[in-house]
Amino acid sequence: MTNTDNCDFDAVTAYLRSLQDTICNAFSAFERNSFQQDEWSHPTGGGGRTRILENGECIEKGGINFSHVRGDQLPASASAKRPEIAGKPFEATGLSLVIHPKNPHAPTAHMNVRFFIANRHGSNPVWWFGGGFDLTPYYGYEADCVHWHTVARQACEGAVGISYGSLKKLCDEYFFIRHRNEPRGIGGLFFDDYRADGFRNAFGFMQRVGDHFLPAYLPIIERRKNTEYSQQQIDFQNYRRGRYVEFNLVQDRGTLFGLQSGGRTESILMSLPPTVNWRYDWRAAPDSAEARLTDYFLQSRNWLDDRAKDRCSEQ
Amino acid sequence: MTNTDNCDFDAVTAYLRSLQDTICNAFSAFERNSFQQDEWSHPTGGGGRTRILENGECIEKGGINFSHVRGDQLPASASAKRPEIAGKPFEATGLSLVIHPKNPHAPTAHMNVRFFIANRHGSNPVWWFGGGFDLTPYYGYEADCVHWHTVARQACEGAVGISYGSLKKLCDEYFFIRHRNEPRGIGGLFFDDYRADGFRNAFGFMQRVGDHFLPAYLPIIERRKNTEYSQQQIDFQNYRRGRYVEFNLVQDRGTLFGLQSGGRTESILMSLPPTVNWRYDWRAAPDSAEARLTDYFLQSRNWLDDRAKDRCSEQ
Repeated sequence: MTNTDNCDFDAVTAYLRSLQDTICNAFSAFERNSFQQDEWSHPTGGGGRTRILENGECIEKGGINFSHVRGDQLPASASAKRPEIAGKPFEATGLSLVIHPKNPHAPTAHMNVRFFIANRHGSNPVWWFGGGFDLTPYYGYEADCVHWHTVARQACEGAVGISYGSLKKLCDEYFFIRHRNEPRGIGGLFFDDYRADGFRNAFGFMQRVGDHFLPAYLPIIERRKNTEYSQQQIDFQNYRRGRYVEFNLVQDRGTLFGLQSGGRTESILMSLPPTVNWRYDWRAAPDSAEARLTDYFLQSRNWLDDRAKDRCSEQ
Repeated sequence: MTNTDNCDFDAVTAYLRSLQDTICNAFSAFERNSFQQDEWSHPTGGGGRTRILENGECIEKGGINFSHVRGDQLPASASAKRPEIAGKPFEATGLSLVIHPKNPHAPTAHMNVRFFIANRHGSNPVWWFGGGFDLTPYYGYEADCVHWHTVARQACEGAVGISYGSLKKLCDEYFFIRHRNEPRGIGGLFFDDYRADGFRNAFGFMQRVGDHFLPAYLPIIERRKNTEYSQQQIDFQNYRRGRYVEFNLVQDRGTLFGLQSGGRTESILMSLPPTVNWRYDWRAAPDSAEARLTDYFLQSRNWLDDRAKDRCSEQ
């Protein structure tokens, strides 16, 4: 029920393309090879620009996907909470990325920012922004969690109608693997249906989230990419990556939206890890680093409380 | 709307338990280790008996799961075609198995037979049988496909109200990965909502399907388990296993039913392959054995036409 006259769609796509360049350039600093680029068209209108790097020195598989697609009918996965716009024409643009580092001490990172308009040229058009970023460690480090959430909080400073606390909570709720009764990772930010204070403000907040991804992730990658690791730690990383696959294919609305709306499958599923193991009913040894991942790190907690600094220095 | 007075639930569970024994014993002949067994309870009633074998000589990962569960509310995934029983109490029993052989020349096999009663003790109880088996090769062999479908056809001889042709068609339709526009494998049999000619007949047909699984699969395993293979062929097997994961987690009603109804996650996801790779936009070399899998074998076709014998001998 929002006037779309002031929505500058082109400004959003221009920002997202530029953010894709910035992020790719930043990761390229770690790598000998550059990202491979594929431009593609969407069957119902629009298209995208997928960039992928595989088997790098630091990144085992990383994908950064820009898309701007139009469709005749908004799929159910995008309108679950808005039955009034189900099946309406829509236009969506977004940047999605997943980075799977080679080193099991370096966490997997995900970021997505997106803009939707449903029924743009009809009656009662509706637009909104959404996005966020979240981190999935295999071997947990308190300092990484605190850094990640510190930058997440900075991204929310001055935001209208939302706060770090509310977006962290939504992130914990969204990235929760129901059939495992377990969070996917240590969370971060998640927002959706955001249009507070009009287009300029909402777009500005989306940009803040997008711009804070690199400051949140790069220092962690720098710290962990050369940590020594064993084959056993790689095995654990591959086992835990199974959880990532389970979440993305069973629950993730972005993935299901893409697949249901006839999106480019290879661009959507670039998020899946390069190597994954499923072992029946595997359990970590008590008090091991592997057990500590689920027992300590994958618990919804306040990473920025007064004792955070002490916990970091103990590690 | 069917009278359940004549439904002998205990006879069904007795048959399924015995079939689990028979199948495990048959596979144990190939293996030094025996199946690991876990008995478990379902939170809303009933439970199951899971048997698993990992890292065997022939079977890289195989699971055979018997379950008999009761629930208060039939989940959406089991009642999509029957809105009148959505949310009703239900009782379900079934045997599900997935065998992932180590050798990439040996296909993955899946079999499931099941019996459902919704609203058993209320008004308008509804019962039905369902099940089938299907085969997923990595390297295709005409003779294996013809053998598999020959036994599938034998299982349907004399069936009331259904035929090999109709069940093969349903199987092709069900095991089709929509987002890949590609069949999961070479099909077999699939039936659901079956209650033709009353309980005795329908139960009898389910038993025929269950009993024909070993004659369909064992000769293929015997033929392929010692075929020499390269690392490149293992890589291709692991890549193709990704499709298996995608189908099971995105589309498979049995998997989603299990996860939605609070089933035992490790028993449900035992179907997932032990090792899987996702590579971005990978393509097989033209005219290679890998290309032949999708170009020839993973096409819905009549494996039992007049020329089947010739095609086998050409291979």
